[in-house]
Amino acid sequence: MKSVAIVGTGLIGASIGLALRARGFRGEIAGWDANPAELAAAVALGAIDRALPSREAVLGTDADVVVLATPVLPILDWMERLAPVLKPSQLVTDVGSTKREIAELAAKLFGGSGEGGPRKGPAADGAARAQFLPGHPMAGKESGGAALAEAGLFQNAVWLFTPLTRGVAGESGGEPSPLAQSEPSPLAQSEPSPLAQSWREAVTGFGARVEEIDPVRHDEVCAWVSHLPQMLSTALAALLEETFAGDARGMAAVQAIGGRALRETTRLGASPYSMWRDVALTNTEAITRTLEALEQRLAYVRENLRTPELREEFARANRFRAKHG
Amino acid sequence: MKSVAIVGTGLIGASIGLALRARGFRGEIAGWDANPAELAAAVALGAIDRALPSREAVLGTDADVVVLATPVLPILDWMERLAPVLKPSQLVTDVGSTKREIAELAAKLFGGSGEGGPRKGPAADGAARAQFLPGHPMAGKESGGAALAEAGLFQNAVWLFTPLTRGVAGESGGEPSPLAQSEPSPLAQSEPSPLAQSWREAVTGFGARVEEIDPVRHDEVCAWVSHLPQMLSTALAALLEETFAGDARGMAAVQAIGGRALRETTRLGASPYSMWRDVALTNTEAITRTLEALEQRLAYVRENLRTPELREEFARANRFRAKHG
Repeated sequence: MKSVAIVGTGLIGASIGLALRARGFRGEIAGWDANPAELAAAVALGAIDRALPSREAVLGTDADVVVLATPVLPILDWMERLAPVLKPSQLVTDVGSTKREIAELAAKLFGGSGEGGPRKGPAADGAARAQFLPGHPMAGKESGGAALAEAGLFQNAVWLFTPLTRGVAGESGGEPSPLAQSEPSPLAQSEPSPLAQSWREAVTGFGARVEEIDPVRHDEVCAWVSHLPQMLSTALAALLEETFAGDARGMAAVQAIGGRALRETTRLGASPYSMWRDVALTNTEAITRTLEALEQRLAYVRENLRTPELREEFARANRFRAKHG
Repeated sequence: MKSVAIVGTGLIGASIGLALRARGFRGEIAGWDANPAELAAAVALGAIDRALPSREAVLGTDADVVVLATPVLPILDWMERLAPVLKPSQLVTDVGSTKREIAELAAKLFGGSGEGGPRKGPAADGAARAQFLPGHPMAGKESGGAALAEAGLFQNAVWLFTPLTRGVAGESGGEPSPLAQSEPSPLAQSEPSPLAQSWREAVTGFGARVEEIDPVRHDEVCAWVSHLPQMLSTALAALLEETFAGDARGMAAVQAIGGRALRETTRLGASPYSMWRDVALTNTEAITRTLEALEQRLAYVRENLRTPELREEFARANRFRAKHG
């Protein structure tokens, strides 16, 4: 891996550039962002060496690794545009927050994940294609932007990969069972290509722990551990905002009395819509299921505030926290 | 204030003893707990000087200030038992998490809050009674017990008082409007009694900020900022526990992938039922209203995952966090 192009130089993209430099990567890092201010900030921070001058310049990149670090919908757009023009020797990877749609599109358009196995080489249309390795670093902040980028952002984070297998398209076609367990990938024993291996080593060098997961299962688990907490926190903060909007004394009391419990349960409410729109659009079904389940659970708690069932509910919650503390 | 008796020497009661000592209180601190282990721990920690030998000894206390630091239902029991036997020169205060029922009972049984004004002196039955100052320190931990007590627990916390006024019983009799604004207390300008003043000064000396609030409004605001976050966190943790109970790989994925978002939104799920039972029993209506409102809000978010309404919901949540960050 001698050169990298980062498409989307916001918080995650710029942090990847800084993390590459921090671990001693000596090759060129080019970058592009649709927002000129973000692009300039990434250059100023030293996250990228050089700003690509246009979208067309991105399509003409000869970087060994192209990192798509935009929200999910622009990632899907870039995949459509890059697949026909990149060389088979190049690797594309991404950091999108949902993986099912990206993995499905990658299986159609790209030449495998650089993991060896049957999908290596020609794509469905017979043309030799670049490789695509779908990824998702579980790191971030409530707000985005290159200005908040840090070389250490991925330290101790989990970096998930959902490599392409022949199973992906089939699995996602039917009704996805909640957290359906996929078969172990038949490619798991194959030798990864040198570029895919280099990218995994870079990620490990960022201080992240690499894990592999089926993309459908990824989206289901992320709905539970990330998307549901986000929607919940947004809903709670918005509800408080609306309830006390016309009641200055009430809002003052909320602010005076509210402590860590309120702060923690509404913290994610600070996240901007722009960071979550594409997650809501590309994981709608899984998020819907988790929200419905939580609505029912809250109704159950509400109906049992004065019954012994509440004791059992607290005991279940205590057991979860004893494992995930 | 030359002597204090602390009834309930768990986390809060023992921390009050330690905080009194830390700020140089030289008088005697006696203590009682229904659990002999908690009582012994409070003595061992130096939170109390002396363990009262029995419930009867509590009823015979001549301490200037009696602090009721048990859950709410035992506080109500102790109020019934103490009111007929304490002297008018004594002050009872409490740290109960809900205040409407306590303030109502205190208005019936005790001789005012030591705030001056019309309820000072004889109680409803004409007998001279001790004063009662309802209080609520907004401090705590996920778990209770004297072993976790700290002199600094109340540092920078808000310590609410809901002094008795003639308005209390009337206000709580009808349908409480959400966060009904009470009239400014007619007693607010009165001189507090020396003991009530001493206790307020002690609390300020613990590093807490004293605020006054109407008891009905207290319970409504606490439902929003404390009880709802608790029930929400318990429900979410219990839901995850049940969803993944028979799915070891799924639970492993939740643990591997879940980060700060999951940790913060389920943290309160570690709280034991014993700390919340009496809150659920004495603030049922207000908690029910907040849970219903949140259930509806989550359904609204769920139905709008793919519409522009979601943008507005995020904007409302952003506004709340900008004020309460």
